[in-house]
Amino acid sequence: MRILNKDTAAEIGKEISINGWLHKKRMLGGLTFINVRDRSGLVQVVIEDKKESEKLRGMQIGTVLEITGKVKEEPRAPGGAEMYEPTITVMVPVTEEPPIEIDKPLSHKSEHLETLFENRVVGLRNLQETAIFKIQAKVLEAAREYFIQNGFTEMNTPKLLAEATEGGAEVFKLDYFGKEATLAQSAQFYKQMMVGVFERVFETNPTYRAELSATTRHMSEYITIDAELGFITFDELREFAHQLLKHIVDRVWEAYEPELKRWNAQKPLLSDNAVSMPLAEVHELFEKKTKQIVEDKKDLTPAEEKWITEYAKKNLGTEALFVTEWPSNDMKFYHKKMDDKPELAERSDFLFRGLEIMTCPMREHRYDVLVQQLKDKLGADPSDPGFKYYLQAFKHGLPPHGGFGLGLERLTQRIIGLNNVKEATLFPRDINRLTP
Amino acid sequence: MRILNKDTAAEIGKEISINGWLHKKRMLGGLTFINVRDRSGLVQVVIEDKKESEKLRGMQIGTVLEITGKVKEEPRAPGGAEMYEPTITVMVPVTEEPPIEIDKPLSHKSEHLETLFENRVVGLRNLQETAIFKIQAKVLEAAREYFIQNGFTEMNTPKLLAEATEGGAEVFKLDYFGKEATLAQSAQFYKQMMVGVFERVFETNPTYRAELSATTRHMSEYITIDAELGFITFDELREFAHQLLKHIVDRVWEAYEPELKRWNAQKPLLSDNAVSMPLAEVHELFEKKTKQIVEDKKDLTPAEEKWITEYAKKNLGTEALFVTEWPSNDMKFYHKKMDDKPELAERSDFLFRGLEIMTCPMREHRYDVLVQQLKDKLGADPSDPGFKYYLQAFKHGLPPHGGFGLGLERLTQRIIGLNNVKEATLFPRDINRLTP
Repeated sequence: MRILNKDTAAEIGKEISINGWLHKKRMLGGLTFINVRDRSGLVQVVIEDKKESEKLRGMQIGTVLEITGKVKEEPRAPGGAEMYEPTITVMVPVTEEPPIEIDKPLSHKSEHLETLFENRVVGLRNLQETAIFKIQAKVLEAAREYFIQNGFTEMNTPKLLAEATEGGAEVFKLDYFGKEATLAQSAQFYKQMMVGVFERVFETNPTYRAELSATTRHMSEYITIDAELGFITFDELREFAHQLLKHIVDRVWEAYEPELKRWNAQKPLLSDNAVSMPLAEVHELFEKKTKQIVEDKKDLTPAEEKWITEYAKKNLGTEALFVTEWPSNDMKFYHKKMDDKPELAERSDFLFRGLEIMTCPMREHRYDVLVQQLKDKLGADPSDPGFKYYLQAFKHGLPPHGGFGLGLERLTQRIIGLNNVKEATLFPRDINRLTP
Repeated sequence: MRILNKDTAAEIGKEISINGWLHKKRMLGGLTFINVRDRSGLVQVVIEDKKESEKLRGMQIGTVLEITGKVKEEPRAPGGAEMYEPTITVMVPVTEEPPIEIDKPLSHKSEHLETLFENRVVGLRNLQETAIFKIQAKVLEAAREYFIQNGFTEMNTPKLLAEATEGGAEVFKLDYFGKEATLAQSAQFYKQMMVGVFERVFETNPTYRAELSATTRHMSEYITIDAELGFITFDELREFAHQLLKHIVDRVWEAYEPELKRWNAQKPLLSDNAVSMPLAEVHELFEKKTKQIVEDKKDLTPAEEKWITEYAKKNLGTEALFVTEWPSNDMKFYHKKMDDKPELAERSDFLFRGLEIMTCPMREHRYDVLVQQLKDKLGADPSDPGFKYYLQAFKHGLPPHGGFGLGLERLTQRIIGLNNVKEATLFPRDINRLTP
């Protein structure tokens, strides 16, 4: 296969051939400079020869080229080297200008996002955009690496289900050979069942929510990094999630520090170990320090989420914080009450840079208690196909376990500092958008 | 966290605690032996003490245990060590027998498959079953490793689409906020568009086909390992796919040789480099050697697929073979004709152990030719939302490119030697099955 552009600095003094796209063209003091883009970035090519510069006349951005030339050191060029005395061959001509600029940062103002998404196919060729998704790919790679190092088995569970697992709201329904099927809103039930098989499981998988409102935080399709661990305490679970986040952040900064700088992203401050604070304490601190009143003490307001992570950054040495001790009245049927304080649930919300990135709870693992909570909370029939197989796993022995689902796009958004989760999605889907 | 069972051999002479499930119980010469299962496999525990053996009376398989005891060398025990003088604590009691045996190999005869799938949640605790999915997880890990080593970017593309990309057959449709959406039958169009951005992309993603018949080869939901490469020739593409398969097979055998032996799986014979044979030559060889006539020369029959890979194993030193030079009359609109023989397409089918595991074609990358083929083959309107964005990528420059989609379950099936693709699927979906 052909030479990678990223190797140009290693080719100084040699003649090489490269392939790529015309990315930028400019004239300077009688010389023509072009930037050629491939999967490794840009190579600068300087053209003196009249016959060769003539080829560039009218050539559009995106034209697919093969260039043969010599390589010399040039500290001001991308990669520290440039090509000169080139012979340029057009492999695929392009006759139209791109519909969106690809050599300058694109506007991410909220009023320009629809233009950004409508022209995604070409706009992603902008290297500032490409960087978002290179970083996102590294988040996934780092997460999987951490799971595998820690004895997890990767699994693939179906997204076509017989019934919605937690009632009917926000569920996509479809015709499945004459029966009704739903699209999975979560892999949670499968994760729990598979704790009985693999003890520790993970899955990186699409998740579907029929969100009726268009917000900066929600989409109808997104990727969740799901994990579930058996034989674990609530403290160990939170510590695991914290170390996972640290591992991801470290790997991303190792690989993409220059790209992160272009987005003005600062490496997050993360404490050595997980830091947790009970919900009541967050309310108390917030009210005392901001002189504001929190009406609904059963939940965190967006203002509190923002304030408490800023507080944690200044006072607790971390931008990621677990909020614990949630009222058990409001919990899901599968959550576990605290043994010593049954009015509270063993649930935590993991806040990172002002936003909840995951709920991180222990599950009720005792069959009898779970069946009772299912009846009490949902009024559901345990023999219903949506619960029957799930409960079978408990009946035949599940240990204490807990887990979480980490939204890939939300995490990417927080790492880079983007305003809208859709900016961190290749092809976002919401109530208004089903293309490209 | 607690001690892993796989570490027991390293703990000889010490007292340790383990957690796991009661997997098997037997009496032998006045002693009680139990096997305890966790994510690393089995630990044998020998019980002499009356008080401790009494605890085991009536204890069901699946009971969740904590066991503290001493470790000694025992070559006949799993892992080469066993625990003795144990103190047994029941963490979670189980009162019912498992609905399916978990300590002996389960029947995979076709008439028993429905029982296997109906009891999947418990049946997967059988270590012979678990092995299938440990191997499958390694296939995914090895594939991603190979892509990342070769400069690919991982991407996540939507499964909710505005229109079916290639007509309406075998498509699941759903209501998307009052509009019609379809579930993606393939990530192919997105892969091609993203060649213009990342040059080399991969995705491991669910794929949906509304298959009307129940066969051993088809499911309505499965995982595809998708890859697409720009700036590549047809020969290089096949070589890449062949090396990917070799890498996966090597990694799987390194990690799971004992488990593969339990399934009587032989390591596939794979040649150093890709081996290809034109379709016409396959027909000729088959007819000459088997004295059978092939009626339809435009395709391979299942009998030919089986015969030619056996032939290749004996005569060409490989169990994987590319069949090339397919008639272009039958090709898809996005396939590319051979430059020197336009009656043939630059397409190959990759056969492995008697089964096609992927189609591996070059794509037509020239905008004008592609638009013409779209009109000629499908009679489609290039401004249709299903094609508009796709064609935009070509209009703004795509290089010669090709790719493939490798079915994860089919590959796992072939590696292990299972008869039905559903046996290599955690929770299979077909026309008759939407649970568990």
